[in-house]
Amino acid sequence: MTDCQGDGEGTMSPMELFEKLNAQGEKVRSLKSAKAEKAEIDAAVQLLLKLKVDYKQTTGQDYKAGCPPSENLIVSNNGPAADDCDGEDLVDPWNVSASSTKGVDYDKLIVRFGSSKIDTELLERIEKVSGQRAHHFLRRGIFFSHRDMHQILDAYEKHKSFYLYTGRGPSSEAMHVGHLIPFIFTKWLQDVFDIPLVVQMTDDEKYLWKDLTLEECHRFTVENAKDIIACGFDVNKTFIFSDLDYMGASPQFYRNVVKVQKHVTFNQVKGIFGFTDSDCIGKISFPAIQAAPSFSSSFPQIFGGKKDVPCLIPCAIDQDPYFRMTRDVAPRIGLLKPALLHSTFFPALQGAQTKMSASDPNSSIFLTDTPKQIKNKINKHAFSGGKDTVEEHRKYGGNTEVDVSFLYLTFFLEDDEKLEKIKEDYTSGALLTGELKKILIETLQPMIAQHQERRKQVTDEMVQQFMTPRPLNHKF
Amino acid sequence: MTDCQGDGEGTMSPMELFEKLNAQGEKVRSLKSAKAEKAEIDAAVQLLLKLKVDYKQTTGQDYKAGCPPSENLIVSNNGPAADDCDGEDLVDPWNVSASSTKGVDYDKLIVRFGSSKIDTELLERIEKVSGQRAHHFLRRGIFFSHRDMHQILDAYEKHKSFYLYTGRGPSSEAMHVGHLIPFIFTKWLQDVFDIPLVVQMTDDEKYLWKDLTLEECHRFTVENAKDIIACGFDVNKTFIFSDLDYMGASPQFYRNVVKVQKHVTFNQVKGIFGFTDSDCIGKISFPAIQAAPSFSSSFPQIFGGKKDVPCLIPCAIDQDPYFRMTRDVAPRIGLLKPALLHSTFFPALQGAQTKMSASDPNSSIFLTDTPKQIKNKINKHAFSGGKDTVEEHRKYGGNTEVDVSFLYLTFFLEDDEKLEKIKEDYTSGALLTGELKKILIETLQPMIAQHQERRKQVTDEMVQQFMTPRPLNHKF
Repeated sequence: MTDCQGDGEGTMSPMELFEKLNAQGEKVRSLKSAKAEKAEIDAAVQLLLKLKVDYKQTTGQDYKAGCPPSENLIVSNNGPAADDCDGEDLVDPWNVSASSTKGVDYDKLIVRFGSSKIDTELLERIEKVSGQRAHHFLRRGIFFSHRDMHQILDAYEKHKSFYLYTGRGPSSEAMHVGHLIPFIFTKWLQDVFDIPLVVQMTDDEKYLWKDLTLEECHRFTVENAKDIIACGFDVNKTFIFSDLDYMGASPQFYRNVVKVQKHVTFNQVKGIFGFTDSDCIGKISFPAIQAAPSFSSSFPQIFGGKKDVPCLIPCAIDQDPYFRMTRDVAPRIGLLKPALLHSTFFPALQGAQTKMSASDPNSSIFLTDTPKQIKNKINKHAFSGGKDTVEEHRKYGGNTEVDVSFLYLTFFLEDDEKLEKIKEDYTSGALLTGELKKILIETLQPMIAQHQERRKQVTDEMVQQFMTPRPLNHKF
Repeated sequence: MTDCQGDGEGTMSPMELFEKLNAQGEKVRSLKSAKAEKAEIDAAVQLLLKLKVDYKQTTGQDYKAGCPPSENLIVSNNGPAADDCDGEDLVDPWNVSASSTKGVDYDKLIVRFGSSKIDTELLERIEKVSGQRAHHFLRRGIFFSHRDMHQILDAYEKHKSFYLYTGRGPSSEAMHVGHLIPFIFTKWLQDVFDIPLVVQMTDDEKYLWKDLTLEECHRFTVENAKDIIACGFDVNKTFIFSDLDYMGASPQFYRNVVKVQKHVTFNQVKGIFGFTDSDCIGKISFPAIQAAPSFSSSFPQIFGGKKDVPCLIPCAIDQDPYFRMTRDVAPRIGLLKPALLHSTFFPALQGAQTKMSASDPNSSIFLTDTPKQIKNKINKHAFSGGKDTVEEHRKYGGNTEVDVSFLYLTFFLEDDEKLEKIKEDYTSGALLTGELKKILIETLQPMIAQHQERRKQVTDEMVQQFMTPRPLNHKF
């Protein structure tokens, strides 16, 4: 009846075992919380233990919830395995929370997710191939992790071009400065490599996950697209699309969605995304829709039907689960795996433990904030790494690793020397918290004002132009 | 995080309880077959028993697998409940098998599915409202069950028109005579009520379920469309669409798909369709795609954006699970429930216990069969209700209830008197099996030849015309 993957135990891959373990762990928890009978709980625990033994035998690693087996698994040769996976950081597309005030431990995340660190060698290669100094997001480790970036550069050196794909979930009209990070960086990539870009607005996802109407989600798409356009993308090289529109406007896109949907089971999305039986079938099948733009054949108007144009996805690391799934499916449907560049999370004003939230106005600086609001929010809410009194601060200095104002400057103050000087002065105690906040305020106020000015100039016609399926100015 | 339906026990509807019971029953079976520990099995059985008690309290009926609570549930006033549900007939969109040689017990199916019998009163109303004698499929109980047909007629009498929706899963190039039943009847409905028709070709479904490529499924759509067109549909009132094409050509269609997907949980499709965790996410979300054409807003080019045009679906009863789900969701997304007319199954040549299969060439008469093939297949394979010897047959007579040749004549011999005479003669023994088969052969040979002649006249341009999204010749 089906040619979709089953999960017979005899042939379980490490990922399938991992997913089965996740499901069993979930079952044990739900039995306990439902105060099930002891015998039933014991039996479920027994099975969990048996699966853990199987997992260890198959992967050479101890099972840890949230730590899937790494992509290229070599038994007992995968670096410091389980031990690197004991942080309590929670990172998935809908939740990010860190156990430390310094935020998520990104080195551990690289090991857990099985991606690669952006090291000095890769940085130098990017500079060599692009002929440009690396963006400060790269120099400062804000984009810190990648998958297959060397292959993208190898091909580019051989005059084989690629395209960029990034996206946004339009859950409200208001975007905050953190939302700009992938777009600022993507614009830089577009400029230095001179390549096309597709931007997916997942309004269907927001409809499925939130208490919003289709009309609201689509309106947020259009409003958010204005902020994205205001980042300065080249209209001749950029296609922004609403899922709600493009899914119903491109038979090729839908064909790729169905291909992915045929090759991913509920067991798999349960393991990867934590879906449950009570989730709606829209959520369960949505990952295929976020996967489809990774394939150039989803955009025949841009790539003329070519299905082998490589794709590079700059995104925050919380989106990686979608693309781990995509990369797993791609070879099975005869398509290329997308490459990725992962960024860290932009910290909330209250501290680096959580991602900012568009629904909490005080957690972030919004792109609509006035200079006064910016000043007040930073002075009032920005978590300080300074000491309690001026005297103590002068004596012991502040901590830039947890100071949100300093962290924000690493994102938005482009001048390396100036940033270094601020770090020295704050650490030594020469620079007080109030003074540091003032520098951030004076950096953000003009930046936001300029963004607002550029956004004002984005007309409905321009949005329409960016969002019309059409050829782009690039030959493949 | 979600507004999809949960399944908290406190607020479970009869259908949710039913689905939970299905899931728990499945769990018990899988534990047993996996030879799980006794304690675990016992605990699962305990929970199953508890759920059965809850179900009885809520519905006033005993739980029976495969017998969902009927749609308009009134405690202890729902006719003979559980007892009517003890047949072993299996009926779902992918499997039909009957325990009796007479085939599926359709009266029991009406009780199980909670639909209504097409009785003399409804038959007379259809004749009165349409001003035409009822089609012999109606007169002979081939279309035997309905949902809300009276409401369709009420509205029609008040000059509120409706539209027809039927479909086909294009799993191969070859269609057999049984596949024509819904189309022959739908054409009659289109003619007598003078209304538009949409025909969904679920090529995406066939891709998800079968070992076929997208290209093959789409090619089968086009080939099958030719057979459908050859039934004589009015091109000015008929839109035939491939899911693979139309999903990517109609944002309104996709919006309705997403709406349904948001309001149906995995638990629900598991209960209704028997999906498991090992099924691919495409199958799990597909029911929403078969639901969407039930809503006039999925076809803005036909209905000008009106979302309140009633829909009538003529189909074989095995498709009912899709539309039970659709009718459950419709009011929750502000849309009309579709009405239905259900047909019995067309029997295989080998007997009425199973539905014909396009993959077994000897199970059916194909639309491509030559006169000689028709003759040979009927003579060789058509299950006979006659006696073993001519002598016995003359003495005791044959059984028309199980004789496939006679059953086929009830579908294709329009002359009531002639059919009645054949029945009398066969039952009395005056007519021998060979003679009965000859009558069928002489009925089918010209019918198939005429179909082949009409199909030859269907050009690619005509297919293109039928399959182009466009306004139809009807004002709503």
